[in-house]
Amino acid sequence: MSNEVLNEKQLRFVEGVAAILTPWGVPSVAAQLYGYLLLCEAPASLDQITAGLGISKSTASVAARLLESYSLVRRQREAGTKRALYAAADNYEAMIAQQNRLLDALAQQFDSGAGIVTAKGVGARLKEMAHFYRLMRDAMDDALSRWRQTKRS
Amino acid sequence: MSNEVLNEKQLRFVEGVAAILTPWGVPSVAAQLYGYLLLCEAPASLDQITAGLGISKSTASVAARLLESYSLVRRQREAGTKRALYAAADNYEAMIAQQNRLLDALAQQFDSGAGIVTAKGVGARLKEMAHFYRLMRDAMDDALSRWRQTKRS
Repeated sequence: MSNEVLNEKQLRFVEGVAAILTPWGVPSVAAQLYGYLLLCEAPASLDQITAGLGISKSTASVAARLLESYSLVRRQREAGTKRALYAAADNYEAMIAQQNRLLDALAQQFDSGAGIVTAKGVGARLKEMAHFYRLMRDAMDDALSRWRQTKRS
Repeated sequence: MSNEVLNEKQLRFVEGVAAILTPWGVPSVAAQLYGYLLLCEAPASLDQITAGLGISKSTASVAARLLESYSLVRRQREAGTKRALYAAADNYEAMIAQQNRLLDALAQQFDSGAGIVTAKGVGARLKEMAHFYRLMRDAMDDALSRWRQTKRS
């Protein structure tokens, strides 16, 4: 899509993505932008986004930065300019690696927290949560291996 | 912890949790509140939270509602009153079930999106993402089964 307004079906797709993500705390405009970028064949400039979604450039910029912080979107520079271009992230390995770092950090923090509490129940819960997060991290690693195998075959 | 200010070690734990979660888009106060509730033996009232973290009641209330929307915190009513109490969520099954619904919804939305795009590359990416989300959902289900087994043994 270049600098054009979305058609009916595209708009419905974008709104569908937003309807799924907003209950998870993703602001509505950011969620719409994510849906929009998923429909874009090439990385989009803020001008394109502004035209496509009918939002202001500053709103688009804030939403794009937020999606970038979630690792849902990657930003790049347009060759030969200082203009930023945005694209839906499809680097699953990086996303999972980043999530696994989060799970590891939380597990470590919860284990260390279990050492400073006096209430037995609180310490047990923190240890249990640390254990749970490590299980989740392992599951992510497994899923990623399966994903790589599927892509190869 | 009842209505008291955090001690040095507790404060460090709370700040550690915040340092891990804020890069993921969790507002600083909400991240601190999550750390605080992890240290609480019993569900905490807004008065307790206000005293413990030295924040205003309205700030505490907004942060608590946000954590509730993330499923990180559950809210309950204090028996015989209308006062809300907040506790760190430890209902992993519900959290995973909710995440799996998100992954399913996204996979379905991406598949339907693949049907409306004309650019081949965009359709292929949407299908690939749908497949990836389904793999992740399966991984979560597996992890939850392992978790249940661990808890039983």
